[in-house]
Amino acid sequence: MNIGTYLSDWANRYKNDLTEDILPFWLLNGLDGENGGIYTCLDQYGALMDGTKSVWFQGRAGYIFANAYNNIKAKQEWLEASKSCIDFIEKHCFNEEGRMYFEVMADGTPLRLRRYVFSETFAIIAMAEYSLASGDKTYAEKALKLFKQVQTWISTPDALPSKYLPHVKGRSHSIVMIMLNTAAKVRQVIKDPALDKQIADSIAELRDYFMKDEFSALLESVGENGEFVDTINGRLINPGHCIETAWFLMDEVQYRGGDKQLLDMALTILDWSWKWGWDEEFGGIINFRDCKNFPAQDYSQDMKFWWPQTEAIIATLYAYKLTKDDKYLDMHKQISDWTYAHFPDQNNGEWYGYLHRDGTVAQPAKGNIFKGPFHIPRMMIKGYELCQDILKEL
Amino acid sequence: MNIGTYLSDWANRYKNDLTEDILPFWLLNGLDGENGGIYTCLDQYGALMDGTKSVWFQGRAGYIFANAYNNIKAKQEWLEASKSCIDFIEKHCFNEEGRMYFEVMADGTPLRLRRYVFSETFAIIAMAEYSLASGDKTYAEKALKLFKQVQTWISTPDALPSKYLPHVKGRSHSIVMIMLNTAAKVRQVIKDPALDKQIADSIAELRDYFMKDEFSALLESVGENGEFVDTINGRLINPGHCIETAWFLMDEVQYRGGDKQLLDMALTILDWSWKWGWDEEFGGIINFRDCKNFPAQDYSQDMKFWWPQTEAIIATLYAYKLTKDDKYLDMHKQISDWTYAHFPDQNNGEWYGYLHRDGTVAQPAKGNIFKGPFHIPRMMIKGYELCQDILKEL
Repeated sequence: MNIGTYLSDWANRYKNDLTEDILPFWLLNGLDGENGGIYTCLDQYGALMDGTKSVWFQGRAGYIFANAYNNIKAKQEWLEASKSCIDFIEKHCFNEEGRMYFEVMADGTPLRLRRYVFSETFAIIAMAEYSLASGDKTYAEKALKLFKQVQTWISTPDALPSKYLPHVKGRSHSIVMIMLNTAAKVRQVIKDPALDKQIADSIAELRDYFMKDEFSALLESVGENGEFVDTINGRLINPGHCIETAWFLMDEVQYRGGDKQLLDMALTILDWSWKWGWDEEFGGIINFRDCKNFPAQDYSQDMKFWWPQTEAIIATLYAYKLTKDDKYLDMHKQISDWTYAHFPDQNNGEWYGYLHRDGTVAQPAKGNIFKGPFHIPRMMIKGYELCQDILKEL
Repeated sequence: MNIGTYLSDWANRYKNDLTEDILPFWLLNGLDGENGGIYTCLDQYGALMDGTKSVWFQGRAGYIFANAYNNIKAKQEWLEASKSCIDFIEKHCFNEEGRMYFEVMADGTPLRLRRYVFSETFAIIAMAEYSLASGDKTYAEKALKLFKQVQTWISTPDALPSKYLPHVKGRSHSIVMIMLNTAAKVRQVIKDPALDKQIADSIAELRDYFMKDEFSALLESVGENGEFVDTINGRLINPGHCIETAWFLMDEVQYRGGDKQLLDMALTILDWSWKWGWDEEFGGIINFRDCKNFPAQDYSQDMKFWWPQTEAIIATLYAYKLTKDDKYLDMHKQISDWTYAHFPDQNNGEWYGYLHRDGTVAQPAKGNIFKGPFHIPRMMIKGYELCQDILKEL
């Protein structure tokens, strides 16, 4: 194939799909003109299935609309949508201790608080990206303040309730990778040593604790000192999640203007995780694997969710940009062909989220509290930027 | 078909499969000769995937081995297996407040406590059934004491932590139906007004709060006063769970020596839930439906798990016994044909647990913390008894 044509075709498709399909779908069907903020529990046609609001998605959508404003086009409508989500967060989503809820009602009445801080990390990236879009520095300061609060919670023993009993110590990939990305997003708009330290610490922790040469895998959970835990949970590989981590690391390589060791680490994670995740029989990135090849026990283990595919699209394109190794362009084509053949809903817009292993649609809703405007538009915005960058270098 | 032949064939198959396949599989591969209790995280071949012990299954297996002893054959090995699970529970599975853990390590070191009391209810039925098997009345007393403790916890506001914020009130089908069955099991071995009251209350609650004529469905969760909650969770139907409730009610009809109103209620739940659950396209009982026909959002929504099938086998046979309506014998044949064509592992024994909608095996493990020796052997023991009863009446 002609690389220039391939990349400019994808750049156009990313931009068009983002601006003509994905963002309009959520602006029309999701944005809550009455209470502010966004609904995500929408069926195949965009109809509201449930007025419950995901707090994750107030932050995620707040981030996406500002990110599109910053990188695609300075559309006032997008900036306002971002602001609406952030206003809703500030008005309704914090409890008295400053923790953020997980679910609230349409009008903001809180429903559920969980033990994790992902609501907070998504609010942080929304505020940081909105600060960049609007030029309003107070949001950068709010983002940094909340970031430091989250750091305190996660580093103070027993500050957050634990799923397991207090004597059961362990480490989770999720929080390490999300703090890496969150710190990097805040660093765009405000400097602080706490951000640099978090990025360095997350990288070291991923490398020293979670990457396991003996399994050629990055594991989802390990012991307190990175020990391999030989249980169903300890053996779990989430390939899409690892591939997402791989491109978060590539972001850092790019920020540093190159870092061979860090790039090698990112590519190792990508290569390992692709091997575990790519389904040779049906195509696509599978949900879960067990590093000793026992059957993974999550009920969705062999399904194809939308977001591992979008992360693989970004990571392979990014790897090509940073290495110019054709292997990654081939992988980008492979994952893109499969993803675009199965996920977009040709009749009603947006993408299905939940496919069976063979690519057939398991259920056609466009969103719920875990799916909304985040991974798909993020891929399109990032993909567009990566294609443009590579085209400039050709 | 000849009904006598049909039922005696099934009686033989239930008994043979139970005594030659299912119970030996768990005695050989699951029972922990070192620490006592039982492992359930076994792969397709019976190999231990994870030494973590499910506390639910210490009680569930403790119940099943005593139940087989009481109803199939007084085998010392079964009585001892039951006692081993109960000893392990008493030694390791309670915390200082008397709450029971959810997961412990092989040696009993506690790992995780959840907010629910299902560990407790399964321990109660184990103790009651073991009391009947062994003749040791102290276990009946322990069962009753723990039962009353659970009643206190679930009826005292804020005694148990809630998944939602304190102001969010609601009712869950799970606890109502499990308390009905648990009370009935304890009543076998000890009389107490608290048991009778629980049974009456559970029946009234199911009828007045959870059964919804307008959807021809029994819902999994409703508002504090039985209000329909129009959310993804509020609209959820779990057909297998409802069918299990239907035969718990038939158990009560039989205990009462007949009760037309209660039988009508049980049959209505069975008929409704079969209609929602039976998959006309592929066969089998599907996991979840939405009462307004929005796509159910649980990732496993269209899968076929083992236990909804076993509950449907019991319920249809029971309904035939209590009504002699051929329709239920046809349903029993329909669900049995599908179940026996897809779940038993012909090469390695026991049953697969997790099939795709079309009946293909999603993952072949024989157990995990949610699957072990409970629904399948319970179906075989109860099915054997029901066949024998009906044969006597022919």
